[in-house]
Amino acid sequence: MQLRMYITTTLGFVAGALTTISFIPQVLHAWRSKRCDDLSWGMLLTFSIGVVLWLLYGVMLWAAPVIVANAVTLALLITIMVLKVRYTVR
Amino acid sequence: MQLRMYITTTLGFVAGALTTISFIPQVLHAWRSKRCDDLSWGMLLTFSIGVVLWLLYGVMLWAAPVIVANAVTLALLITIMVLKVRYTVR
Repeated sequence: MQLRMYITTTLGFVAGALTTISFIPQVLHAWRSKRCDDLSWGMLLTFSIGVVLWLLYGVMLWAAPVIVANAVTLALLITIMVLKVRYTVR
Repeated sequence: MQLRMYITTTLGFVAGALTTISFIPQVLHAWRSKRCDDLSWGMLLTFSIGVVLWLLYGVMLWAAPVIVANAVTLALLITIMVLKVRYTVR
């Protein structure tokens, strides 16, 4: 039973790490191609608001992994949105 | 204290709902523009693997909101990846 909880927690940490770092290749892709047109503002903004709420949720529970993962995700999303604005206004 | 927990849980549910539904505008955007080139495979695949692990995590804990949110997100991500393959091979 303890092993099961250990596996579950590890699974959660790996899942959180993957969904967070997934935005790194997106930032690199945008940076190299100088294009973000196919990324929808609806997705970027809705996802960002969701991440801000996850961050607040983490702060309310004082859950370090939730705070760290969502702070990093938010920083990457802001980077993508800045690049999108920059590459759209040419 | 009970109010605080209520607010925190609500925050978590709203956050999860937003990060899940955020992929709906992305699917619509891709569908309308017939383009997914600016979405990086690295992001799509890493994020999808993360979502699959979140889904397993939800199943291990038998946590309905985690299961539902991640199943819907995975379905939307698969849709985006199918569109990306379809719009790339022209």
